[in-house]
Amino acid sequence: MDSTADTQIPIWRGADEARRQLLSRRRPDDDELSEVEQQILRRLFDDGPEFEEAVRRIIERVRVGGDAAVREIAGAIDGAAPESLVVTDEEFERARDEVPAELVSALQHAADRVRRYHEVQLEHAAKSFSSDGLGQLVRPLARVGLYVPGTAAVYPSTVLHTAIPALVAGVAKVVIASPAVPGDDGAATVNSLKLVAAQIAGVDTVYKVGGAQAIAALAYGTESIGAVDKIFGPGNRFVTAAKRRLYGAVGIDAIYGPTETMIIADHTANPELVAADLLAQAEHDDLAAPILIATSETLADEVARQLVEQSDDLPRRQIALNALGNRGGLAFVPGLDDALAIANEYAPEHLALVVENAHQRAGDVRNAGGLFVGEASPEALGDYVAGPSHVMPTGGSARFSSALNVGEFMKITTVVQVSDELLDEVSADAEMIAHAERLDAHARSLERRRRDQ
Amino acid sequence: MDSTADTQIPIWRGADEARRQLLSRRRPDDDELSEVEQQILRRLFDDGPEFEEAVRRIIERVRVGGDAAVREIAGAIDGAAPESLVVTDEEFERARDEVPAELVSALQHAADRVRRYHEVQLEHAAKSFSSDGLGQLVRPLARVGLYVPGTAAVYPSTVLHTAIPALVAGVAKVVIASPAVPGDDGAATVNSLKLVAAQIAGVDTVYKVGGAQAIAALAYGTESIGAVDKIFGPGNRFVTAAKRRLYGAVGIDAIYGPTETMIIADHTANPELVAADLLAQAEHDDLAAPILIATSETLADEVARQLVEQSDDLPRRQIALNALGNRGGLAFVPGLDDALAIANEYAPEHLALVVENAHQRAGDVRNAGGLFVGEASPEALGDYVAGPSHVMPTGGSARFSSALNVGEFMKITTVVQVSDELLDEVSADAEMIAHAERLDAHARSLERRRRDQ
Repeated sequence: MDSTADTQIPIWRGADEARRQLLSRRRPDDDELSEVEQQILRRLFDDGPEFEEAVRRIIERVRVGGDAAVREIAGAIDGAAPESLVVTDEEFERARDEVPAELVSALQHAADRVRRYHEVQLEHAAKSFSSDGLGQLVRPLARVGLYVPGTAAVYPSTVLHTAIPALVAGVAKVVIASPAVPGDDGAATVNSLKLVAAQIAGVDTVYKVGGAQAIAALAYGTESIGAVDKIFGPGNRFVTAAKRRLYGAVGIDAIYGPTETMIIADHTANPELVAADLLAQAEHDDLAAPILIATSETLADEVARQLVEQSDDLPRRQIALNALGNRGGLAFVPGLDDALAIANEYAPEHLALVVENAHQRAGDVRNAGGLFVGEASPEALGDYVAGPSHVMPTGGSARFSSALNVGEFMKITTVVQVSDELLDEVSADAEMIAHAERLDAHARSLERRRRDQ
Repeated sequence: MDSTADTQIPIWRGADEARRQLLSRRRPDDDELSEVEQQILRRLFDDGPEFEEAVRRIIERVRVGGDAAVREIAGAIDGAAPESLVVTDEEFERARDEVPAELVSALQHAADRVRRYHEVQLEHAAKSFSSDGLGQLVRPLARVGLYVPGTAAVYPSTVLHTAIPALVAGVAKVVIASPAVPGDDGAATVNSLKLVAAQIAGVDTVYKVGGAQAIAALAYGTESIGAVDKIFGPGNRFVTAAKRRLYGAVGIDAIYGPTETMIIADHTANPELVAADLLAQAEHDDLAAPILIATSETLADEVARQLVEQSDDLPRRQIALNALGNRGGLAFVPGLDDALAIANEYAPEHLALVVENAHQRAGDVRNAGGLFVGEASPEALGDYVAGPSHVMPTGGSARFSSALNVGEFMKITTVVQVSDELLDEVSADAEMIAHAERLDAHARSLERRRRDQ
C-alpha cells in the first residue's frame, strides 16, 4: 500500500491486495462508546450499567411508564423535554414559513419522481393469486413508524425516500419519530426541513422523540404515540440496539451501519467526476466508505490527485479525508472481472459502474443495494431526485437484503381452500407423514374427514 | 370464565371477555430458563453467566475457533461430538434404507405439491423492470442455511417446507444444520427422516450441528461449514437468541415463538371436526395456542365436550390439555365481525374460517400467517401436502411478516441509468436539496456534470 502525498488516502495495487484490504475493512469494529454516548448513559443511570443493559432498561421504562417515561428520559439527556410529544398544526405551519419557496418546490419535484418510481415498482411487486384452491393475499401493513435521526445532520430527503414508498404501498397510517431540538424561542421541536418534507410526502403525524425511547414508544405505544407494526429507518447506536432488541415484538426493516459507495471505473471514466463522486460519499461522516476500483492505473492515480485538489475548499474537508483514510481507498485492479468479483463479495450499499458499455456489465452485479450505471447517473442524483429510495442495505447486507422498496411495506398471507375431492386425494399422504412425526391428532383431523365422505 | 368439567379448558363468553383474554395471553412471558437450558449453561460455563452473555460467548467461541469450537461445545453439552460435522453419502444411504418406502413416497408426493405451489408463487413474486432509465433487479440469494431443530420432535415436513421454496426461488447453495443424536452404533448423526426429506427436497449438504453454535457457524463459516447469506427456521431459546444477536451480520428470516391456530366457526361447522383440528394444534407442545372463536354458543359448548372425548385416547393427551389450558381457549362471540376483528388484532399464525360462505369473508382477514377456508381445508392438510409452506409468523408478527415464501429468498437491487438530458433536467433540484442538507460535495458532484455539457 502507498498513499497520496499529503493525505492518508490508501492506494492498493492488484486484485489480491484490494480484496484483502477491502474485505478486512468492511465492518466497523465494535468500537468503544463515544464521549456523547457515555454522557447519555451517565445522565440516565447512576449505577453505570453496560450499554446493552442500559438499552434494555430504557425500553422497559417506556413500556411501563409511557409518555411520562419518554419525557423523563429526554429531560435527563437533553436537560429539557418537549411539553407535547406530537407536532402541532401550528408547528407545521411555522416550518412551512421558514423554508424558502424554491426549496419547497425542489422537494416537491423530488417527491413526485420518487412517487412515480414506486408506483411502477408496485406494479412489479408480489401479487395476490388463487389457483386450484391455493393462493396468497398480498396486502399493505396497517401502521408503520419511520425513525428520522439527526440533530446534527438534517436530511429531508430521507423523509421523502421512506415515507413515499410506504404510502404508495398502501399503508394506512404512516408516522414519523424524530428528536426535537430547542428552537429560537426555547421550545423544542422537530427541524423545519423534516416537517416540510413530511407534509410534502403526505405524513401528518410526527412525534418529537428520538433514541431508544422512540423505538420503544413506537413498538409498545404510549398515551400519545400509537403502536406501529413495523419500524423503518437508520439511527444512532441506541436506536439500532433498541431495534435489534425489539425485533420480533415489532417489525424491523434492517440494521444500518455507515454508508458505502464503491465505484468501478475504467480508462473511459472522467477522473474529475469520479473524484467528485467519492467526495460526495466521503463527506457524510468519518466512517463512510468511499471506494474506487479502477481498472486503469492512470485513472487511479489521477483520481488520487483530484481528491486532494477538490477537497481543498470543501466545507466538510476534514470529514471527507477521514472517511477516505478510515474505511475508503483507491484500488487498481487490472481486470474488470476481478473488480466485479470484489464488488460482489463486498456487497456495497451503492455501486457505480463507470466503464465502457456499462449497461452490458450491470447483469454481472450480484450484490449491491443500488446500482448506478454510467457517468450521467451519479449516486448524488439517486440521493435526491432519481426515483428509487436512497435507503439501502449496508455492511455487506446487500447479500441478503433489498434496497427499501414497496414490498417491505406489504406482507403475504397464504390461502388454502381446496375441494372435498382434492382433500380425499391427498390426505392419505398427509396422514402417513403425521404418524411418522408422532403427531397423531394431526392424522386424526384428516381421518375424521375421510370417514365423513 | 368457566371451563369444562374435568379439564382446565377456558370458555369465554362475549367479545369483550374474549378479546381481553386472548390479547393479554398472546406473548409467552420471558420465562425462567428450563432445567435443560440451565443444564446446558452449567456444562458450558463454570462462572454462571447470564443467558444472553452465554449466547454471546458461544458465538464468539465459534467465530474464533471454527470447527474445533463447535465440536468442543457439542461435546460439553452432549458428552460426545460427531467426528465429522458433515453428513456423508453413506449416512444418506443408510437413512434411505431405514425409512419405509410408503413414507418416502408420501414425502415425495408432498414435495411435488409444495414445489408446484411455489412455482406458481414465483410467477407472482416481485419482478425486475426497467423504465425510463430506472428499474430494479430481483435475484435469488446465493447461499442460505436452514436450521432444522429437534432431537425430541422430528419434522421431515419442515425440511420440505423450507428447502423447496429456497430452491424454487433459485438459491444456488441451500444447506441444512440440524443437531445430531447418537444412533444404534453410538455414532452421532442426523435423524433419518430429516435426511431423506433433505434428499427429496434436493439438498445434499447437511451439517451435524445444533443450538447457538450452529447459527454462529452458518453466519461466520468454519473450516467445514460454509458461511451463508441468510438463516431460516425455528429453534430453541439458544437458537433464537443467536439469530437475534447475529441479525444484520447475516440475514435472519424471523423470530419464531410457539405455534398458534385460531378457528372461527359458526353454527354450520361440525363440532367433531373443529375439536379434532384444535387438538391437532394442541398436541405440538405445552405452549401451543389452540383457539376457537365460535359465533354459536351451542357449537362452543359441543366443541368443549368433543375436546374431552377425543383427547381421551390421544397419545399426546397431556400436552394437548396443557396447551388448551395455558394459551388456548374457546370463546363465544355473537357476531362474525367481532370474531374477525379479534383475529385481526391477535394476528394468528394459522386462521381457519369454518363459516357459511367462508370464501366471501376471507377478504376481511387482514392479519394471519396462513388462511384455511372451509371444512375441507384443515390446517393439518397445510402442514403436509396442500402446497404453501407451513412456516408462518407467530406471536402477532403476522401484522408485519409473511408466511415463508419465495420472496424471502430473493432481494432487490435498484438501478439508476438515466440519460444526459434527464440528468440536466433534474439536477438543479437535487443540488438545491444537497445544499440545504449542507452536503456540498453532493451538489458539486452534480454541478461538475452540468458544466460539462
